[in-house]
Amino acid sequence: MTAVQTYESILVDRDGPVGIITLNRPDALNSWDWLMSAEMNHAYGEFDRDDDVRAIVLTGAGRAFCAGAGLRPAGATFDGSLTRDDAEAKFPGAHRGADQLRTPVIAAVNGAAVGAGITMALRADIIYVAENAKLGFVFNRRGVIPDADLLWSLPRLIGYSRAIDLLLTGRIFAGSEAAEIGLASRALPAEEVLPAAVAAGHDIAANVAPVSAAITKLVARKFLQETDQNAALELERKLFRWAGQHADAPEGVNAFKEKRAPRWTLSKTRDFPTELFDDGR
Amino acid sequence: MTAVQTYESILVDRDGPVGIITLNRPDALNSWDWLMSAEMNHAYGEFDRDDDVRAIVLTGAGRAFCAGAGLRPAGATFDGSLTRDDAEAKFPGAHRGADQLRTPVIAAVNGAAVGAGITMALRADIIYVAENAKLGFVFNRRGVIPDADLLWSLPRLIGYSRAIDLLLTGRIFAGSEAAEIGLASRALPAEEVLPAAVAAGHDIAANVAPVSAAITKLVARKFLQETDQNAALELERKLFRWAGQHADAPEGVNAFKEKRAPRWTLSKTRDFPTELFDDGR
Amino acid sequence: MTAVQTYESILVDRDGPVGIITLNRPDALNSWDWLMSAEMNHAYGEFDRDDDVRAIVLTGAGRAFCAGAGLRPAGATFDGSLTRDDAEAKFPGAHRGADQLRTPVIAAVNGAAVGAGITMALRADIIYVAENAKLGFVFNRRGVIPDADLLWSLPRLIGYSRAIDLLLTGRIFAGSEAAEIGLASRALPAEEVLPAAVAAGHDIAANVAPVSAAITKLVARKFLQETDQNAALELERKLFRWAGQHADAPEGVNAFKEKRAPRWTLSKTRDFPTELFDDGR
Repeated sequence: MTAVQTYESILVDRDGPVGIITLNRPDALNSWDWLMSAEMNHAYGEFDRDDDVRAIVLTGAGRAFCAGAGLRPAGATFDGSLTRDDAEAKFPGAHRGADQLRTPVIAAVNGAAVGAGITMALRADIIYVAENAKLGFVFNRRGVIPDADLLWSLPRLIGYSRAIDLLLTGRIFAGSEAAEIGLASRALPAEEVLPAAVAAGHDIAANVAPVSAAITKLVARKFLQETDQNAALELERKLFRWAGQHADAPEGVNAFKEKRAPRWTLSKTRDFPTELFDDGR
Repeated sequence: MTAVQTYESILVDRDGPVGIITLNRPDALNSWDWLMSAEMNHAYGEFDRDDDVRAIVLTGAGRAFCAGAGLRPAGATFDGSLTRDDAEAKFPGAHRGADQLRTPVIAAVNGAAVGAGITMALRADIIYVAENAKLGFVFNRRGVIPDADLLWSLPRLIGYSRAIDLLLTGRIFAGSEAAEIGLASRALPAEEVLPAAVAAGHDIAANVAPVSAAITKLVARKFLQETDQNAALELERKLFRWAGQHADAPEGVNAFKEKRAPRWTLSKTRDFPTELFDDGR
Repeated sequence: MTAVQTYESILVDRDGPVGIITLNRPDALNSWDWLMSAEMNHAYGEFDRDDDVRAIVLTGAGRAFCAGAGLRPAGATFDGSLTRDDAEAKFPGAHRGADQLRTPVIAAVNGAAVGAGITMALRADIIYVAENAKLGFVFNRRGVIPDADLLWSLPRLIGYSRAIDLLLTGRIFAGSEAAEIGLASRALPAEEVLPAAVAAGHDIAANVAPVSAAITKLVARKFLQETDQNAALELERKLFRWAGQHADAPEGVNAFKEKRAPRWTLSKTRDFPTELFDDGR
């Protein structure tokens, strides 16, 4: 792995086609602040604009993933950290978040993730978690409410019944439960989480067509808001037809038949068919 | 526990900050009728208007939770029970249902819950169930169809695939399966269900800010109908900001830092920020 | 079982009230083409118009359920099979798909189901699967994207978090995982899948009122698109009232009380209350 840029609160590395972002304030359990957020989103943007990066892994240094924010009374400034405006001004190219990237993002939740920590992980496409990690949407136990879109999103991610239990009570739950209820795809011993996530990134890089991945994640996410099933089907058909007429489709089939790795030629940065979405919707 | 009021079909108790409603027609397996419904909703309303009640538990007396209604041919009056109009006229202050209360409701499904029994439990926020309890959406096996909003709600509570299996076939399933599929949060030996639910109520009372809980459950439920994710996010942000500017937020953080129980000062009955919803939506 | 009609790519049988469709190109792992699709949909239509057929089972001959389509480069014609237009012209009475039938459909996924194979299974109401069956939404590994409405539907069937993992990565997963994540209702040893699905069909035939089943599946599916919970509740109430006033309702209750099998008299083909849906929605 080679460091590609230095930030204050995060580390950025590359393992071949897999970009790795590590929340790096281990002495503070990687607790969230606006600087970390702006740096992470900036790194997301850099990786997303790089065709050689085919998957991104987000993890935490030390024993925690991210202990959340808000450990200071509301209204107080965060000692030693920037405000939102300051932080974002420092990184004008920062992205909006993992769920809006064209590149698949895997959260490797190596340890505790509460409050802002777990909401950050949830914006990844796929979550691997340490089976003994302590997780919690602790907002209601701190006198505030769930934020970062949780009240709308979590019921759609895992079903309302399971979501409301976690959001309402703010109880701490283990990574193993997160996998049982569908919040995480896999729960593993803590030391296996990052290697497994990086391996999953390599699998995506080797086997999944980059533009197919981008369409899948962005359109499925967008369709959470689409109430007209036929309109959704119509757009999906248009995109499927587009994909079928481009070079990755015959390559995918031929590689499969020839039992070899596919050589994708479409680029996530240049070939994403934005024009197919320009239908006034 | 001290009885606070006497009804015909239910018992109402208090265990400190936890209100307990017990369906109390054990000889009839607590089978549902309009009188029971009106009494339960009236008790819900009384508890919801009482700031000292911070969580409500709903359970059944004897070995069943509620054997449902409808065991008489359609069109027949229910022997010995009131009609809907009669029952509701008797309790003009009755509430609309557990999901619309500001107070968290935990169903302690101590035994069988079928038809109207399980739909009543499903309107609670959190469900604990006896692992050997017999459950079933038996409507289609009685020649009617699922009611009480099940056709819209159940797919959103546990996902369509699991919902349609249960609704279509009307098959009987165990409490343990209910927990596996996310219908219930926990399955326990029958005799542990009520104590565990009451303990969960005490945990909420001790640790969860009352207004935070009210906002969380009412807004998350409302957002099941919200198709515009940005509009949802905007309202959530407004509510988060409101919460952050009020007394429970610094108290929550300070209590956590000082490793002591929080002393919430906001009242669910007086401080719910209704005005923030007055945006024409 | 008695064969009722001969097709080229499928077999059609009857086991009393249970119609059975078997994808029957075992040498090609029942791989999908337009002829098979048109034949399957035609057989669906025939069974759906037959009041004696009360449940339909879809399965595959040999060791696979369906190995999918698309194993030839995009753009190429399918050797030996018809185009979509040719195939559909041959079967003008073909139905739109399992999810739009009035009759409950159970997929008995006896073995591998990938690509078009698993999407075909997913349109059934209930899925039983071989625990060691290889399943996969492999589209993104073939250079195309998920089709047949998967981007809209799968997140609603099993929750977004689990859906996006499967759709994005296209990874192969086992039938046992399909049951754990709610994609399938049951995972069984391969040789037990078809018998269990046929038994489930007989249970539906014996115990579930045909019109109740039709309303339940069609309305719950339709409600996935309904964002107004009150409008949904209003239609459900109208349908419930209608059901309560017809002969199957007292029969269902009487049969239950008399501990005997119900004798339903309403017909799925003649008595479906289409008029109740004619409200401009």
